[in-house]
Amino acid sequence: MVTRLTDGLRDESLASLPEWRHEPARDAIVRSFAFRDFVEAFGFMTRVALLAEKADHHPEWSNVWNKVDILLTTHDAGGLSIRDIQMAQAIDALVG
Amino acid sequence: MVTRLTDGLRDESLASLPEWRHEPARDAIVRSFAFRDFVEAFGFMTRVALLAEKADHHPEWSNVWNKVDILLTTHDAGGLSIRDIQMAQAIDALVG
Repeated sequence: MVTRLTDGLRDESLASLPEWRHEPARDAIVRSFAFRDFVEAFGFMTRVALLAEKADHHPEWSNVWNKVDILLTTHDAGGLSIRDIQMAQAIDALVG
Repeated sequence: MVTRLTDGLRDESLASLPEWRHEPARDAIVRSFAFRDFVEAFGFMTRVALLAEKADHHPEWSNVWNKVDILLTTHDAGGLSIRDIQMAQAIDALVG
């Protein structure tokens, strides 16, 4: 069972993810990405989809042409868990 | 230049797309899809992405695990155009 991060661990983890914003209402983290066009945006989404399926941890996300918004939280934990932090790190690594 | 559908043409077109709901605030059409799991949902999204890129007409859409929500409208026309109707028909044909 994955447990929800304590406030202290969450703040510590978020310090290493400066591009992500904490959304207290959901206890989630969100990040917006902008690409050159739809092909670049969907290419990125495909890479994230493969990461997500492999980790069995899936984002809530939306896309409008070159924009992708990603929200990560862990339903089973009722909020942020280490799995969200790891997924955010893996997603950040895709965009360098 | 693509023009916005008249109310009459819109209603006539929507009659042939019973799974789509008109959203007056955006003059858009929306449909929600549910699949067996994330792999099925993202497989569907990939097929829609290829259709959209080929038609140069892209959806506003979101995904949460097995669910996909699609909104179609034509920004250049300030609302629904024939391109949205054609895209909705093509998407429906995928899940037929």
